[in-house]
Amino acid sequence: MAVGWFYLSCLVLGSLGSMCILFTIYWMQYWRGGFAWDGSTYMFNWHPVLMVTGMVVFYSAASLVYRLPQSWVGPKLPWKLLHAALHLMAFILTVLGLVAVFKFHNHNKIANLYSLHSWLGITAVFLFACQWFLGFAVFLLPWAPVWLRSLLKPIHVFFGSSILSLAITSVISGINEKLFFSLKNGTNQYSHLPSEAIFANSTGVLVVVFGLLVLYILLASSWKRPEPGMLTDRQPLLRDRE
Amino acid sequence: MAVGWFYLSCLVLGSLGSMCILFTIYWMQYWRGGFAWDGSTYMFNWHPVLMVTGMVVFYSAASLVYRLPQSWVGPKLPWKLLHAALHLMAFILTVLGLVAVFKFHNHNKIANLYSLHSWLGITAVFLFACQWFLGFAVFLLPWAPVWLRSLLKPIHVFFGSSILSLAITSVISGINEKLFFSLKNGTNQYSHLPSEAIFANSTGVLVVVFGLLVLYILLASSWKRPEPGMLTDRQPLLRDRE
Repeated sequence: MAVGWFYLSCLVLGSLGSMCILFTIYWMQYWRGGFAWDGSTYMFNWHPVLMVTGMVVFYSAASLVYRLPQSWVGPKLPWKLLHAALHLMAFILTVLGLVAVFKFHNHNKIANLYSLHSWLGITAVFLFACQWFLGFAVFLLPWAPVWLRSLLKPIHVFFGSSILSLAITSVISGINEKLFFSLKNGTNQYSHLPSEAIFANSTGVLVVVFGLLVLYILLASSWKRPEPGMLTDRQPLLRDRE
Repeated sequence: MAVGWFYLSCLVLGSLGSMCILFTIYWMQYWRGGFAWDGSTYMFNWHPVLMVTGMVVFYSAASLVYRLPQSWVGPKLPWKLLHAALHLMAFILTVLGLVAVFKFHNHNKIANLYSLHSWLGITAVFLFACQWFLGFAVFLLPWAPVWLRSLLKPIHVFFGSSILSLAITSVISGINEKLFFSLKNGTNQYSHLPSEAIFANSTGVLVVVFGLLVLYILLASSWKRPEPGMLTDRQPLLRDRE
């Protein structure tokens, strides 16, 4: 794969990711009254912004660290530190996003964690926490033997993509649910497709396009760091042809 | 990869896929009054059943044909025919699922295609149609040269997984939306988590688990049909090590 093609993809992904965040902020600011941290509906407005920023865009950026050609040569430790640090930032934003919706619910006596959106979302965050701590303990701290890392790596990679897929599914069901909650009066009903609905639906489509591109780059073999001597899923093929 | 492990996975996937269909039928039959083809809400009930069956379970089965070890040896044409035929069945079920919801909407003067759920769902079906016809024209009919097939194959594979991801996202946002529509009175509100809500949420979780497993098997290199002499995404790695 040509390095130029990679950087073009980075530019496209960076633009799409920024648009996902900016569109969500604009939706909340322009149509939903902006932001506060007081238990009101303006506190809820932080929830979509922080979840899209943390669980989708920052999470994706953190996951893609090993797809940078620079990370393919030289020592791996600095890249591992960057991978872990970016994921930690993504996790902190995600937790703040959860605090925003829980405080809003509790302040307004709304039940927590009943919808399918919330079930999948909280599962994604729980798996993200497990993934981060297990990754930190096994891949960053120096104690784990090579065989344990080789054993856990495909599981780490599988859960990495699965958590992102879960996050995207949660974001989409969340945007859909929020629009049904918010747009239900008179001519401003969701079914009449007012400008807010078109804008928020388009934000959802952007999140899906961004997520699918990230998942493609994460999973396509040609974007992966070559690891000679390590046990990878490519070895059976090599062995077949030796 | 051991063949036994593959068949165990097939058993798990088959069971999960059947459960997705049966759970959706049971939800619609037991809590939503069953089925009819008359424009009523009982006609709508076909929509979730046919979409889960067509766009998720049959689509997945059709996509996984080339992951059967038997398909890795001998002529490819019979497997291509099976792949195309199963996808055609999936597509027919999907179109029937669309007819069910459009006829229900039109009969009850409800707008079509306004929610994010419907935008993503109709995109998935449109891409599925394009994918099927392009696949049929290029990979099944004999006219296309090898270079064109090699060029289109990674695009076909990418869109194959993307359409399934879109379908799962649509199903989840659809279940979520349906529960908010149906469970809004008295003690039977969604937020009180009545038995229907727990059952339908669990159905959604099942669909996600099934979908993630299918996507993993579709994308993991060790499950893919080896293609010596063909241009595949594994070749750069082989070339690196030569």
